Amino acid sequence: MTKVSIKQIAELSGVSVATVSRVINNNGRFSEATRKKVLQAIEETGYQTNYVAKSLRMQKSNTIGILVPDITNYFFARTVQHIEETLFEHGYSTIICNTDRSLEKEKAYLEMLKAKMIDGLIVISGIKEFDLVDYSSMNIPVVCIDRKPTGKASSVFIASNHYEGAYLATKHLLEKGVKSPVILMQNRESSSSSERLKGFKAGLKEAGMPFRTDTNLLVVDSRKNVLRVEEKTRQLFLKAFSKLETCDGIFSINDDLAILALDCLKELGIAVPDQVKLIGFDDTLLSRHTSPKLSSVAQDTLKLAETTCENLLSLIQNPSLAVSKQQLVPVHLVERETT
Amino acid sequence: MTKVSIKQIAELSGVSVATVSRVINNNGRFSEATRKKVLQAIEETGYQTNYVAKSLRMQKSNTIGILVPDITNYFFARTVQHIEETLFEHGYSTIICNTDRSLEKEKAYLEMLKAKMIDGLIVISGIKEFDLVDYSSMNIPVVCIDRKPTGKASSVFIASNHYEGAYLATKHLLEKGVKSPVILMQNRESSSSSERLKGFKAGLKEAGMPFRTDTNLLVVDSRKNVLRVEEKTRQLFLKAFSKLETCDGIFSINDDLAILALDCLKELGIAVPDQVKLIGFDDTLLSRHTSPKLSSVAQDTLKLAETTCENLLSLIQNPSLAVSKQQLVPVHLVERETT
Repeated sequence: MTKVSIKQIAELSGVSVATVSRVINNNGRFSEATRKKVLQAIEETGYQTNYVAKSLRMQKSNTIGILVPDITNYFFARTVQHIEETLFEHGYSTIICNTDRSLEKEKAYLEMLKAKMIDGLIVISGIKEFDLVDYSSMNIPVVCIDRKPTGKASSVFIASNHYEGAYLATKHLLEKGVKSPVILMQNRESSSSSERLKGFKAGLKEAGMPFRTDTNLLVVDSRKNVLRVEEKTRQLFLKAFSKLETCDGIFSINDDLAILALDCLKELGIAVPDQVKLIGFDDTLLSRHTSPKLSSVAQDTLKLAETTCENLLSLIQNPSLAVSKQQLVPVHLVERETT
Repeated sequence: MTKVSIKQIAELSGVSVATVSRVINNNGRFSEATRKKVLQAIEETGYQTNYVAKSLRMQKSNTIGILVPDITNYFFARTVQHIEETLFEHGYSTIICNTDRSLEKEKAYLEMLKAKMIDGLIVISGIKEFDLVDYSSMNIPVVCIDRKPTGKASSVFIASNHYEGAYLATKHLLEKGVKSPVILMQNRESSSSSERLKGFKAGLKEAGMPFRTDTNLLVVDSRKNVLRVEEKTRQLFLKAFSKLETCDGIFSINDDLAILALDCLKELGIAVPDQVKLIGFDDTLLSRHTSPKLSSVAQDTLKLAETTCENLLSLIQNPSLAVSKQQLVPVHLVERETT
């Protein structure tokens, strides 16, 4: 006796797998005619119902939870938007939780999602060192984006190739004649920012330049979005920038920080790109509308979202396939007027 | 006869309050023995069951659902972020659902939220004519933001004073010497855009100017964010703008559209603010970083969020207080370089 798969039920009833799943879970988005066809196919395979039910029990709520550090961040919002679209096409609803880069909130939302019996979880953690132990107790598939989990629990990790992006940006600055490049960072650590720092150092090394924290690194003191800072903080930034006497090129770890830099340089009377070249990271909407227009490294949010969904859906179908793996999504350089 | 509380049911059956709640809601995470004990305790108190069920309905999940049309829209994202923060302080988790301005998705997420037994719902509908009938069947408090519901169900509606904002912006243009103002809109209707159009007309009327659709109105054909349009659409926009021969001032219904206008005017060789003055709406992050910097009407997202949460929390405490009401949150003009 062979076991009937949901795919076979779908074939028998002439509808998609997602539709079969919706009918059995009775969530409402199908016609009465479809329901009858699917139920008939299930009846025809009689003794197999339990198997179907069991395989479905693992996806019974048709909801996926996603933890996101900051929905006002364009990169995160776009990625989440693509994920929601992809999952909806597959018959899943997405529960979005904004965790505000707070460990307390991540834990609270995790508890909430547990109670809501989600079928899978996507984590974009806002915490530098986050461990999957908390998540593994949920016994559902977890895919991490952008922030690499520590600890020993097996995990799927999807991220842009931040290292390569930073390396490309640095190389681009050097090719444009920059002699004394600076990496501009926020004092907010994450695996993506460490990777970008490594890429910057690799670019310098390749050009035979040593990396010196006193001349090649500028860290601004803000954990929040720098474009929302108040005047007092802005003055501190201005002061920091005015110290960069020898600098003729800036690789900013994100576009928001690059736009802040552009504003400060303008205010200090330093011409971009003539005196200082500038490149950001993320290719946000803003980068296309500054003056001069900002060069940047583009992350492929659509590809990130698709890769994440593919991995998660496949784990929901076959939890036994769970192994630790890492998939990097390529980035590309977008040259505009600031370089 | 005193009413039985869920706490007493818990004590009677020797389990926790949470377990009683799980049994009554039948969500599956309890043993058959536990179920029997709880049901016995409920039976022993017979006539009170309804009261228990009702009191549970009112406080059972500590979660609030929120429907948002587009999380990549800065105004929506900021409002939702403030709401999440406020609710979290009050012990509530927020389930964010991105509905993509789609009626199908609004309905699907509503079903999902019903199944997750939320305690309250916040709706920012992406549909022009949305009715609260669907929502009222959930029997939980609902507060609508920004998009006014149609139909007869009683509702709480919180919004920025879009009318006043548009009126202020128009008056500002006229005070700056504009003789032939144009309102720039997208073909995406909502109660907020109709209010803004009314405010624009009121400003014209006060100055003794008739409103003419051929000279005072420009509608661009894009339902999506205009800053993400492709080159082909952009060319259509350019063509539309080149027709505005007499126009010397533009009130754009949102900042994104204003930034698109700024780009097109630059490309057409029209100087802002010298030849055409320009003002947006929303005071997004981008408006502070364009060149010249964009004047705009600022919505008070924090106040909107606080007013929404106050109303919702008070209705959760006292559902009997439910009446239809509307609260408008003041906006203010931010003058920058484009006017």
